[in-house]
Amino acid sequence: MAICYQSPIKPISITPSTNLSTPRTLRCNLSFPSKTLTTEPEPVFTSVKSFAPATVANLGPGFDFLGCAVDGVGDYVTLRIDPQVHPGEISISDISGVGNSAKKLSKNPLWNCAGIAAIEVMKMLGIRSVGLSLSLEKGLPLGSGLGSSAASAAAAAVAVNEIFGGKLGVSELVLAGLESEAKVSGYHADNIAPAIMGGFVLIRSYDPLEFIQLKFPMEKELFFVLVNPEFEAPTKKMRAVLPSEIGMSHHVWNCSQAGALVASVLQGDLRGLGKALSSDKIVEPRRAPLIPGMEGVKRAAIDAGAFGCTISGAGPTAVAVTDHEERGKEIGEKMVEAFLQEGNLKASAMIKRLDRVGARVVSSIPR
Amino acid sequence: MAICYQSPIKPISITPSTNLSTPRTLRCNLSFPSKTLTTEPEPVFTSVKSFAPATVANLGPGFDFLGCAVDGVGDYVTLRIDPQVHPGEISISDISGVGNSAKKLSKNPLWNCAGIAAIEVMKMLGIRSVGLSLSLEKGLPLGSGLGSSAASAAAAAVAVNEIFGGKLGVSELVLAGLESEAKVSGYHADNIAPAIMGGFVLIRSYDPLEFIQLKFPMEKELFFVLVNPEFEAPTKKMRAVLPSEIGMSHHVWNCSQAGALVASVLQGDLRGLGKALSSDKIVEPRRAPLIPGMEGVKRAAIDAGAFGCTISGAGPTAVAVTDHEERGKEIGEKMVEAFLQEGNLKASAMIKRLDRVGARVVSSIPR
Repeated sequence: MAICYQSPIKPISITPSTNLSTPRTLRCNLSFPSKTLTTEPEPVFTSVKSFAPATVANLGPGFDFLGCAVDGVGDYVTLRIDPQVHPGEISISDISGVGNSAKKLSKNPLWNCAGIAAIEVMKMLGIRSVGLSLSLEKGLPLGSGLGSSAASAAAAAVAVNEIFGGKLGVSELVLAGLESEAKVSGYHADNIAPAIMGGFVLIRSYDPLEFIQLKFPMEKELFFVLVNPEFEAPTKKMRAVLPSEIGMSHHVWNCSQAGALVASVLQGDLRGLGKALSSDKIVEPRRAPLIPGMEGVKRAAIDAGAFGCTISGAGPTAVAVTDHEERGKEIGEKMVEAFLQEGNLKASAMIKRLDRVGARVVSSIPR
Repeated sequence: MAICYQSPIKPISITPSTNLSTPRTLRCNLSFPSKTLTTEPEPVFTSVKSFAPATVANLGPGFDFLGCAVDGVGDYVTLRIDPQVHPGEISISDISGVGNSAKKLSKNPLWNCAGIAAIEVMKMLGIRSVGLSLSLEKGLPLGSGLGSSAASAAAAAVAVNEIFGGKLGVSELVLAGLESEAKVSGYHADNIAPAIMGGFVLIRSYDPLEFIQLKFPMEKELFFVLVNPEFEAPTKKMRAVLPSEIGMSHHVWNCSQAGALVASVLQGDLRGLGKALSSDKIVEPRRAPLIPGMEGVKRAAIDAGAFGCTISGAGPTAVAVTDHEERGKEIGEKMVEAFLQEGNLKASAMIKRLDRVGARVVSSIPR
């Protein structure tokens, strides 16, 4: 199915100063552009394949404003210039991948997170003369708490940008992805920003959108143990169970732990990071009881030597951190066991490094 | 007046591994010692003079867990071995300094913040054979929101430790100071920790006491504009006005700003630091109306080019940040004007650098 969008009469603007390799604090406010794209960019590739990683949002006390990317698992988008598609339009030709993603996801670009992000980027670039077709390969199960929708959106945004010469910066790509997230899972950037930028990203504000990249020291290792049970976390319940009011002492506690988490990331203090991850007194205590076995899984992770453990995103995946891959495997086994014994749930474990790159092009064919 | 304390029959223990120059995350739990002081240390000086800096606690969204030290203003303690004082006891011989400090402060060491901290350090060291006399020179007005009690306690703790050869580490000195704070202004370490350690310090937990030193990059300048009005902030009201419950959206906002504040400190991003400082939606909006003119003072600071402005501690001092001393002076003038015009309060401004050292010995006379 091909979807047309209304090309803006007045081309929209971008901030060219953003840099994919060394961002720190980024502010994105498209209503105050510093440069205007005066002409529609020409495609520089006939085909681009991109990858965007899974992401772990919330991270305990970082609820709703902190997320990070994990390497080696995520979604792929292959984008082609397609003369069969009406100029200025995009078509989703194929969806494949893990679980029942292909069945569950719509091929209507307006209802597909990759499609929405791709359309947003086309709008930003003012594409009117070229038609595109998009193929989505899901490496992430839906509703796992690993940023599945954000990975699709990030991969699509990067692919569209790249095929037209990479005119947009990180901030614009995050904004495009955020439009997609808003339509499919809520207006939050704590998955899409790290999916695009890699590493840890703190969302500072939404109006204007501002985020801070938190660099975990290059010389330090950080592994995530991701244990995904066969269980559908009841998303609505996961939101509904959150308290509307928080006592001052818990507020101060979680704030200080959020600060400690940020400091631990920047200082490369894995033990401190793990401790902060485990310290949430507001969200995790309400959500964990909704995921059978989660409390036992957390105990099992810590007992097996993890520095910390919490729920990834809104769950049901449990995430633990360690500095050794082998120890990560042992921790993962214990967590899988605990899901079975205490929650009667089958689960599988992955041990993944911190992704420091974010969404990227994996191959391309020049015109 | 000399006060005796009961020397512990079994000498208490210290952790010798802490280091005054490069601490990061420090954990202090005297009930699990790693080394025992088996003998009472001999004094190595007949006299020690120490200084401890003023501190700015809260820092907006860092309410109750973050503080920093400001250089060039603080309290002095002169400590002498005094044969006139009974061995194992301490006497406060003199209190002098700004305002009516000398009149208001007790010379009974048990009721004086410097005295309490000094006694705690003597206890920790197991001093039974030497009597001390202490002279306190206040450079900070009482009740200004600049950590006056913490500065006295920090200077006293460091002086007592130094006169006996500096056997205690940072963590023990903070604990000693915290005992003093608990008795005179509440069990909080966000003034005493930076007063002893310098720089920015995040209090991570109290049981056990853990804090993280946040290093602001050496190559960056950071000036505090401290504007102290002639007004006694009603301390009880300042606490009473705080909400007991906080809405989830404000909680997430303040948490993210606390994270941004920590990141800005560690990344040396002064603009980001100032923005975070100004961003508190929970405490400052309740407290500012109790300090006549404070809201106008904040506006004046920002209009004059400050990166951010908030209430220092529980007030009434207003604190703004900038990277130029001269601009700091201009900002200070505007803030003083605003206190007069909008609050009908006389005020005075100081422009001070970040203190990166903390409490220190300024002179000593060897035995």
